[in-house]
Amino acid sequence: MKTDLITSSFENYLNSLLNDFEDLKIGDVADYIPELTKVDPDFFGISIVTVEGQVYQAGDRLNEFTIQSISKPFVYGIALEENGIDQVIRKVDVEPSGEAFNEISLEDDTGRPRNPMINAGAIATTGLVPGMNSKIKVQNILDKFNIYAGHSLEIDTEVYKSESSTGHRNRAIAYLLRNSNILDRDPEPILDAYFQQCSILVNCRDLALMGATLANNGVHPITGMRAVKEEYVSKVLSVMTSSGMYDYSGAWLFEVGMPAKSGVSGGVLAVLPGQLALAVYSPRLDHKGNSVRGLAVCKKISNDFGLHMLRTTAVSESSVIRNIYDATKVRSKHFRRREEIKELDNKGSEIKVIELSGELRFTTSDIVTSNVLNNIADTRFIIIDFAKVSSIDKAAINILFQLFNTLMLKNITVLLTKTENKFNFLKQLKLEYDNENSGKLKRFANIDEALEYCENIILDSYSDKSAQNIIAIEDNDLFTDFEADEIEMFKKYLTTASYKKDEIIISKGDNADKMYFIISGQVKVSLTKNKTSDKHLAILSAGSSFGELAIIEKRKDRSAYVIADSEVQCAILNFNELEKDNNLTTKVLTLKLVSNISRMLFERLNRSNEILNLLS
Amino acid sequence: MKTDLITSSFENYLNSLLNDFEDLKIGDVADYIPELTKVDPDFFGISIVTVEGQVYQAGDRLNEFTIQSISKPFVYGIALEENGIDQVIRKVDVEPSGEAFNEISLEDDTGRPRNPMINAGAIATTGLVPGMNSKIKVQNILDKFNIYAGHSLEIDTEVYKSESSTGHRNRAIAYLLRNSNILDRDPEPILDAYFQQCSILVNCRDLALMGATLANNGVHPITGMRAVKEEYVSKVLSVMTSSGMYDYSGAWLFEVGMPAKSGVSGGVLAVLPGQLALAVYSPRLDHKGNSVRGLAVCKKISNDFGLHMLRTTAVSESSVIRNIYDATKVRSKHFRRREEIKELDNKGSEIKVIELSGELRFTTSDIVTSNVLNNIADTRFIIIDFAKVSSIDKAAINILFQLFNTLMLKNITVLLTKTENKFNFLKQLKLEYDNENSGKLKRFANIDEALEYCENIILDSYSDKSAQNIIAIEDNDLFTDFEADEIEMFKKYLTTASYKKDEIIISKGDNADKMYFIISGQVKVSLTKNKTSDKHLAILSAGSSFGELAIIEKRKDRSAYVIADSEVQCAILNFNELEKDNNLTTKVLTLKLVSNISRMLFERLNRSNEILNLLS
Repeated sequence: MKTDLITSSFENYLNSLLNDFEDLKIGDVADYIPELTKVDPDFFGISIVTVEGQVYQAGDRLNEFTIQSISKPFVYGIALEENGIDQVIRKVDVEPSGEAFNEISLEDDTGRPRNPMINAGAIATTGLVPGMNSKIKVQNILDKFNIYAGHSLEIDTEVYKSESSTGHRNRAIAYLLRNSNILDRDPEPILDAYFQQCSILVNCRDLALMGATLANNGVHPITGMRAVKEEYVSKVLSVMTSSGMYDYSGAWLFEVGMPAKSGVSGGVLAVLPGQLALAVYSPRLDHKGNSVRGLAVCKKISNDFGLHMLRTTAVSESSVIRNIYDATKVRSKHFRRREEIKELDNKGSEIKVIELSGELRFTTSDIVTSNVLNNIADTRFIIIDFAKVSSIDKAAINILFQLFNTLMLKNITVLLTKTENKFNFLKQLKLEYDNENSGKLKRFANIDEALEYCENIILDSYSDKSAQNIIAIEDNDLFTDFEADEIEMFKKYLTTASYKKDEIIISKGDNADKMYFIISGQVKVSLTKNKTSDKHLAILSAGSSFGELAIIEKRKDRSAYVIADSEVQCAILNFNELEKDNNLTTKVLTLKLVSNISRMLFERLNRSNEILNLLS
Repeated sequence: MKTDLITSSFENYLNSLLNDFEDLKIGDVADYIPELTKVDPDFFGISIVTVEGQVYQAGDRLNEFTIQSISKPFVYGIALEENGIDQVIRKVDVEPSGEAFNEISLEDDTGRPRNPMINAGAIATTGLVPGMNSKIKVQNILDKFNIYAGHSLEIDTEVYKSESSTGHRNRAIAYLLRNSNILDRDPEPILDAYFQQCSILVNCRDLALMGATLANNGVHPITGMRAVKEEYVSKVLSVMTSSGMYDYSGAWLFEVGMPAKSGVSGGVLAVLPGQLALAVYSPRLDHKGNSVRGLAVCKKISNDFGLHMLRTTAVSESSVIRNIYDATKVRSKHFRRREEIKELDNKGSEIKVIELSGELRFTTSDIVTSNVLNNIADTRFIIIDFAKVSSIDKAAINILFQLFNTLMLKNITVLLTKTENKFNFLKQLKLEYDNENSGKLKRFANIDEALEYCENIILDSYSDKSAQNIIAIEDNDLFTDFEADEIEMFKKYLTTASYKKDEIIISKGDNADKMYFIISGQVKVSLTKNKTSDKHLAILSAGSSFGELAIIEKRKDRSAYVIADSEVQCAILNFNELEKDNNLTTKVLTLKLVSNISRMLFERLNRSNEILNLLS
């Protein structure tokens, strides 16, 4: 429902175009195929489809018409896929002919058609579609076109028969191609397939979806099905750019700036790679064979929305470097004891984090490289996060791998996070680094795990503590300012307990009546009791405490699970009992503990706010 | 120093290309200008310059040579700027000729050259450069070229003289153009300027910088100077695409996929819009007049790095929607009292925040539209943040404005933040919304201020409290669970104080020995005492407290300033005195207060961590 709002507002714009150009009645309906003259010359429809699958339409957008020459680029894609570029180029060149749409334009010496967008080149292209007879060829073409359109298309048999019985010029071309061996077998089945291909029925929306599939790198934006291999998409768009609008191609590129193809039935299809396709249907043609209103509408939309493909905006650093910081500022969710925090405050700058975003291509990955290399003084670890990266092209992979090599040569460990779904990148990564370098190049699920890994190495290197250490209650951060006799007195309120790995120590919803001090082992704070979930809120180890809510607001329920992450030993404070002892000494000790808890919370709050400031 | 690392690694790649193609000695140095034959045919240089101004080079990149035909697109840009598109098109068409580089290719009826990249078109273009005589024309051309290159270029007078004295064919062309009135005055000064224009000396680096200026929308990537208006850049690149490589343009687009221009002295310049330019210099030419090694190197680099301009990657939501949330999750830095927090917990979903990033164009702003419209149920305010937006093109402006109108029609207030430096966007915004709609469309410096504005409206609407209210100490959040007699007892530790607007209440570095409870007015917590700084850490008003560090850790120094943001009245707790009273009742009350402080810190910590989880 909500999407209707904007749809209607953009469709209002498209409707206003119908209105603006309604009286544009210059030109004539194509008459070289008798069947085409039967159309209502006033038909007028516009469709725009984005690579996100958003469809905008106005006018007679569902009237069907035969696709005619707009079939050519799509069949060219089939020929490329089935034969490879070299084989196709040997039969059809890719130069604009500089001549009108109905010129034959064969190369003097070889008889090779100048490009696949003129009839001669298109017939040769249809010859390259698999199939010994017309029926199989047509089925192969239809199968592909159905993927491009997202549903089953049909052939207008009247138009097909009309084209077949009156297509003398195309027949002549086919025999000229046979004569020069561009067609190396009987041209009749090829011609028959060509006439049928031109007679496939589409509407404006179909055309726009077919174009949007090219704009979307060959994948249909709604069905998600691939119609043509990515490597051939730019080739198809290239011939549309140089020759798609016949001898108007240069002016079209200059004025409209999108790869395009027109057909004599009055369709025009324009593709803005990576963004959208625009289809217009209006049967009256100019003397170059292009739809008069089609051209006018495309020019107007391109101009109103600045859609010229060569009118690009330069990338900026902010679009690719989402955040850059080090571990003095941002830490893993492994809560550290005070002395460990001090160590990480000193050494955290050895761990750098760079969060990337958007599209990684030549220039943006070049920006990443400069940024990283300007920030590696005294660095041992670089965490590079790909969570918000939407695409990584070939150039970017190449440049990033050079960067990784440079870093590893400097003895810096490179930790890549959130790289899943970056398929080509990972494939290449596997090829390049599966061998000797892999020790210095690591992958982690997310920044938090990568940070924890690096922190653990730094803490192991700089301190004697191992994770399995026992930290007695008097060495707990919350008791460091207690005198020995105070500790002794306090111990009567404490009990001890042991937990096995994966045992649930606190459940969500429990009464908050106890506070825990970890003597040995490690626990995980999490919103679910799912053992394998990586979405923990915190990790705590010996010398830390949890459950302080018991003291602050004991009526409240627990808001998370605390689960033993190893064998765990805890000292447990039952706050109810502590509270019952209404004497001065107990109150002084309790006040001391609560003040220490406040201080811990204050420090954590400061750190959280620092990170927030940094990240926003 | 650090940038050298990657430079050398990318330049290693470029050097390997020199090596790969060193033995490619096919072709001949141009001989139609005698002076050109004197060059060493083995010269070989490569330069790449990105729109960020990064320069990569290899080989004889500083050897100078005359620019020849590569001058044509740049002079065409001058002609467009000085005459407008219509006037220029009347004199020179933009269709590929389909013919060889030395063909004359004039239109049959009008005598108009087919495009500005062939000699006939280029001479006509030079005719359109301002200047009645050759000297002024050349100065105008040099002035522009100097901006493109970023330094002063010179003319090789030997080559100029050689061209001038042997350029019979070009002289013939000029007189044919004069005959058909394409040149409407004496062709000799124009020819003379043309010969000089072709004799401008450049090196490979200069060419790449000139190309990078086009790639960067007409602005030199290092000097930041504009060489050509943005609106003409896509036009220049269009003629380079359709005709820049003579009758090899179609194949070049198919294989390399970048607007390009070659010259007979052996230079090739290719431009990837929005990203980079690539220049190769090697004098041996093929029979189409293009540098043999130049073509080979461009093909190889385009293929290795996937630089074909039609090989784009589709955008994704993650590249444009940085964050989306509402005010139940993220709040302004105005600390609210418990009852206000409750109100905002209930009503915060009426305030939506959407943070945009990257390049806003047709498709990406279409994604923004869908996202916003799918999130407006029960919404009164939408804050749209542009902090991380790197560019907004015409299409995006158009689509965003439609979105704003749709929202305002639904009675939703639209708050735009961080729009500074988005010049065209703001200009258009001013034009569209300066009138009746402005009440529903607002601009704020940042998200925080916009959030505070919306929160204040919601709190005014739903509660009776005004900002000027007096909140007695017993109604302060930290004393709500104190009994009346407890409050009375506690009051003896409190003093009151008044502050004028802008008075400093706490200075950074002060001893933390007092805690403050605001009775009336509002204070700002900030890292600087600069009154006008917007970078405050928090705003606090009546009923809130600050300086709790005094109780938690009184030995510490204050870490920020607290400044009166209005007339302010506070109750002040001197913690030293409270501590001295070593009796049970005082300890119990202190414990109650400290527990309440802990709870406040705990709640703030939870909120901060929730926001952190949300934003990362």
